[in-house]
Amino acid sequence: IILESIEGLLSSPADFKGLKVLVTAGGTREPIDPVRYISNRSSGKMGYALAAAALQRGAKVTLVSAPTSLSPPAGVELVSVETAQQMYEAVMERFPAQDIVIKAAAVADYRPKIVASHKIKKQEGTLLLELEKNPDILYELGQRKKSDQTLVGFAAETEELEKNAHYKLHAKNLDLLVANDVTRPGAGFGSDTNIVKLFYRDGRMQSLPLMDKKMLAHRIFDVIRELRSTGNSNS
Amino acid sequence: IILESIEGLLSSPADFKGLKVLVTAGGTREPIDPVRYISNRSSGKMGYALAAAALQRGAKVTLVSAPTSLSPPAGVELVSVETAQQMYEAVMERFPAQDIVIKAAAVADYRPKIVASHKIKKQEGTLLLELEKNPDILYELGQRKKSDQTLVGFAAETEELEKNAHYKLHAKNLDLLVANDVTRPGAGFGSDTNIVKLFYRDGRMQSLPLMDKKMLAHRIFDVIRELRSTGNSNS
Repeated sequence: IILESIEGLLSSPADFKGLKVLVTAGGTREPIDPVRYISNRSSGKMGYALAAAALQRGAKVTLVSAPTSLSPPAGVELVSVETAQQMYEAVMERFPAQDIVIKAAAVADYRPKIVASHKIKKQEGTLLLELEKNPDILYELGQRKKSDQTLVGFAAETEELEKNAHYKLHAKNLDLLVANDVTRPGAGFGSDTNIVKLFYRDGRMQSLPLMDKKMLAHRIFDVIRELRSTGNSNS
Repeated sequence: IILESIEGLLSSPADFKGLKVLVTAGGTREPIDPVRYISNRSSGKMGYALAAAALQRGAKVTLVSAPTSLSPPAGVELVSVETAQQMYEAVMERFPAQDIVIKAAAVADYRPKIVASHKIKKQEGTLLLELEKNPDILYELGQRKKSDQTLVGFAAETEELEKNAHYKLHAKNLDLLVANDVTRPGAGFGSDTNIVKLFYRDGRMQSLPLMDKKMLAHRIFDVIRELRSTGNSNS
């Protein structure tokens, strides 16, 4: 696998030249008050690896990133956001100009309905936090996608991975879904490696072995190149 | 100020030799499900700077740290925790052996009452998250403190800083409270600088100018040394 990937790198140094790729990364933060927020365990590593791979392969890359502790690859256009709503706006604005969009960010499904303007003080008893739904960025992208655009989604699951992945692929009109069971060692958030299954529109499912996220990023672009050459879109 | 602090460093290289210092740092994470959590904007920089300063001044240092993106100073005993409950247990177990405890961590006051064992799927409408109180580590430490132990707390406030600080100092039986208004530029979470007010048991309040967190850490140990030399405890 290692040799194959290195060969892939050497033999296709610029196979995405002339293409615009937008990658989202990181985990959004949804404020409860000026100090507290709801977030998730996304490290941003998968998204940053995808942005770096796209750059290496000649694409013009926009990285829309929620907070991470990573440095963006030199050469990307970085758009820093915090909340799902901000990510929604940043992505929607840029979507029409893109050839390929990969949503690797872990976007909060819910946000606090009311954001307190001051730090909430401790009080007696329990506290109820009402959450409302965030916009569904991937669904909106799938709706607006044109036939020459490729849309790739990620799914982090803890149960019923295949069922959820097939549903998400079709409900959101994706060209490819990369799903991982985050409960498996080596596939979790924060890890440098991942273990994923690829779900295709034609019903195929492909299990990849544990691999470095950088290597997986190139593998995903190999698949995208293949999909685009055979006409992946909206079929 | 810079010269003064450098002199302080040079002239007192080991004024905490023989003392045990425990510092807490970072922002705790309170899981909602395997993927999502509630956290806060603490970067851990203040706590890590305090641990480094204590080491430089000769102390034996234990750093109980919630997740941060920082590297612990070489030479500390690092105890990594995630939740407030884990921090409570780690600190309580080690408290009797300490001479000085500085609680710089941003500990969640509340945690989700029920932690879902699987990732919560999106559903129609809003969602109610019930939160219950975490143990109050600082209060428990104040209760158990012996006369030769020094207990220092932090308070991050967004309003009524002085009133809240005076209350916290006495309610939690602290020897010193370091309070900052996190809404001020240069005093916020994540910043390399801080602007704080020091509150003493005798009612004194001292406003410090904007300073680097590393410098502030040494300033706090200067104050602790002074308090311990004049007998700060439980008076």
